[in-house]
Amino acid sequence: MRILVKDMAAAAGKQPDAELEAAGWVHRIRDMGGIRFVILRDRSGLGQLVLAEDSGAPAFTLESVIRVRGLPALNEKAPGGAELRVASLEVLSRAAPDLPYQVNGDISKIGLEAILDNRPLSLRNPKIRSVFKVQDTIVESFAAYLRNRDFTEIKTSKLTAGSTEGGTNLFQVDYFDRKLYLAQSPQLYKEAMVASGLERVFEIGPVYRAEKHDTPRHLNEYVSLDLEIGFIESELELIELERELLAHIFGEVARKNGPDLAAWGASVPGPEDLARAPTLSYEEALKLANEEAARDKKASASSRIFDINPEAERLLCEWSRREHGVDLVFVNAFPRRHRPFYTYPLAESGKSGAGTLTMSFDAIFRGLEISSGSRRQHDYDAVVEALPKFGLKPENMAGYLQILKYGCPPHGGFALGCERLTQKILGLGNVKEASLFPRDRRRVEP
Amino acid sequence: MRILVKDMAAAAGKQPDAELEAAGWVHRIRDMGGIRFVILRDRSGLGQLVLAEDSGAPAFTLESVIRVRGLPALNEKAPGGAELRVASLEVLSRAAPDLPYQVNGDISKIGLEAILDNRPLSLRNPKIRSVFKVQDTIVESFAAYLRNRDFTEIKTSKLTAGSTEGGTNLFQVDYFDRKLYLAQSPQLYKEAMVASGLERVFEIGPVYRAEKHDTPRHLNEYVSLDLEIGFIESELELIELERELLAHIFGEVARKNGPDLAAWGASVPGPEDLARAPTLSYEEALKLANEEAARDKKASASSRIFDINPEAERLLCEWSRREHGVDLVFVNAFPRRHRPFYTYPLAESGKSGAGTLTMSFDAIFRGLEISSGSRRQHDYDAVVEALPKFGLKPENMAGYLQILKYGCPPHGGFALGCERLTQKILGLGNVKEASLFPRDRRRVEP
Repeated sequence: MRILVKDMAAAAGKQPDAELEAAGWVHRIRDMGGIRFVILRDRSGLGQLVLAEDSGAPAFTLESVIRVRGLPALNEKAPGGAELRVASLEVLSRAAPDLPYQVNGDISKIGLEAILDNRPLSLRNPKIRSVFKVQDTIVESFAAYLRNRDFTEIKTSKLTAGSTEGGTNLFQVDYFDRKLYLAQSPQLYKEAMVASGLERVFEIGPVYRAEKHDTPRHLNEYVSLDLEIGFIESELELIELERELLAHIFGEVARKNGPDLAAWGASVPGPEDLARAPTLSYEEALKLANEEAARDKKASASSRIFDINPEAERLLCEWSRREHGVDLVFVNAFPRRHRPFYTYPLAESGKSGAGTLTMSFDAIFRGLEISSGSRRQHDYDAVVEALPKFGLKPENMAGYLQILKYGCPPHGGFALGCERLTQKILGLGNVKEASLFPRDRRRVEP
Repeated sequence: MRILVKDMAAAAGKQPDAELEAAGWVHRIRDMGGIRFVILRDRSGLGQLVLAEDSGAPAFTLESVIRVRGLPALNEKAPGGAELRVASLEVLSRAAPDLPYQVNGDISKIGLEAILDNRPLSLRNPKIRSVFKVQDTIVESFAAYLRNRDFTEIKTSKLTAGSTEGGTNLFQVDYFDRKLYLAQSPQLYKEAMVASGLERVFEIGPVYRAEKHDTPRHLNEYVSLDLEIGFIESELELIELERELLAHIFGEVARKNGPDLAAWGASVPGPEDLARAPTLSYEEALKLANEEAARDKKASASSRIFDINPEAERLLCEWSRREHGVDLVFVNAFPRRHRPFYTYPLAESGKSGAGTLTMSFDAIFRGLEISSGSRRQHDYDAVVEALPKFGLKPENMAGYLQILKYGCPPHGGFALGCERLTQKILGLGNVKEASLFPRDRRRVEP
């Protein structure tokens, strides 16, 4: 019966004369002349093996997979406080000696391309692997929080006959004898599920954007954490929901991923921090970003900011950190021209049409937009009237209009980018570091 | 503050003089002359509203979304044991009167095409909606069981440069200036994650099969519940894992989805039933299927069964139900010609090559294959040697070989089809009923 290295010390204390079996990867070999210390790595961490010169063990290389048997012994200097004195060793899989880089060393010198080219190898570095332990907690806690609030998880098609956002950044798929597109979001489907009577739904799934730019904040395929909820009146309710949801996710990451956060020197905001995160209107946010740019030496003082662009996102979080002690800002009341056709108008800004404001919002965390949401227009006639203003034809939007035709409650929702949230929790330089197998314009393998 | 209809009776008992607010869809209207009884449907179920003739309520149609306020009263004859005496009523969204069919009636007369064409409407029928409440539990309990056993959830790319299974049933994607394919399975990725040191991983995500046949058991896009685990010796360990996993999923469905099971007259096997599920070798299974066919009047006695085809799946489950009292059979030791190149050989059948047997298995539940798995070949040289026998070239499989090159433990895994499992739990006639927005050769909307 195999034991994990993290349980070795406890076993050594309890039954020092019982032989144990351990298995894992050869993380490090230290030859002391006559005796070899091998650090064994398994999914639980690192443990020490001691091999006598006359052990008769077969030859093995770094990163080979081995299985050993032997007696445990407490040893304060060994990782975890115990070591295994090896009586027998078996090589389960020999690693080729031409490792592209040292897994057990400092990875800060390895470039991003090499890390991504060699995922099965780079993930063996505990620091790199910790990114995906954090991501696992994000996905788990997102779902758990919502299930506790009566949300139903849904799985919807990623193959659509048209654009859901009215955009053009679509990847085309040859689907038998016709053309389909990879979904940019589950927008239509999650709204349909609210209208179907489920009222509260969430989906965790891939979404696709055929955007050509290659920046540290873009992926052409990412995991979208989507939710939609019925019987709301305003985007402010969604902002409160997101605040509580983030508090839960951050709390779970703090509870479960302490060593992973420590590996990156990272920490997460607490609930009392999140409670202080301000909500600014788009107009206020633009004004503040420009004021902040004037104070900030990094911003070019001459260029005025006309939009909530990456520079504005950075400046708004800088301001919030200084003024509110938290690196999270909600921006709401975006002008209609910045949002999709289905966004609900702000009452005081007229019923519909360009130039008015909307019940929409973004969340900006540590200088990066991590989510976007809105109340949606649920009135059939209002949508039919608005479509032509967005260059869309009602006859092409039959699927969307069907949702509204037979009784659809007021509703809204938002989506969180899973990789961006992971990136910002750990302070990663590039969002691709938070994707196991990222896709960009050039990278399609592994 | 809105109250759900399921909580109305408790509120009526506790504070009968406190006005309540409820909101939902108009499920049924019964005009008794002078008084109207309206059944209100919300996500929690059905509740009764009473409208006096002089209530002054605006006109509303079936399936409109309304919000009402009034005093609750206990009434044994009302659904849930209480009703709301409406003082004010607001129409939040008026349903067009041309409903394609009655949501509140018997859905057995509505054809599958009409149900799928009108998903936002058909899901309002409680029986149809219950399918996706069960599916939600399947997804949740699959993940929870594996997390408790130290598995990490992963999210991998659905865009691949080639086939993972060596097959040709691929959908092609225009990806900037090159061609990619929609992934048939996360096979390569989940194996890479085992080899990366995570050891135990699972993924819940869409997979794609460009198969042209349109049958009640096929979908061109489905949700695959995938897992992979390191440090196993045989597929028999995977069968035991699947047995326990299914026991957990069925247990959770029984606990959480009692009314949903009842709506379909369905039940799930208990752990003691699953413990009795037999494991047959491919050869034994073929022999049994042919013996069973001879007994069975439905099977054509003249035609011999040469493969574990749908007919054999049905017969094997019939046999198991009669002989073991359980509708689940595991079939292992498939011949190599039936399995992908990465399947591990059975020791007694030679090291590799066609014509030998493999450490592989299928699970057949209630007459349908619901999952498929195997131990995988983790030896680099053995895979390089096997590839040409499957018409594959090592130089095209660099990504796969990279996994094995630098130390890969013995491992294996399996995948469960989420929609098939849902279908068989509830006894649905067609797997498309278990997909919110199914894709087949003709159906690409909604």
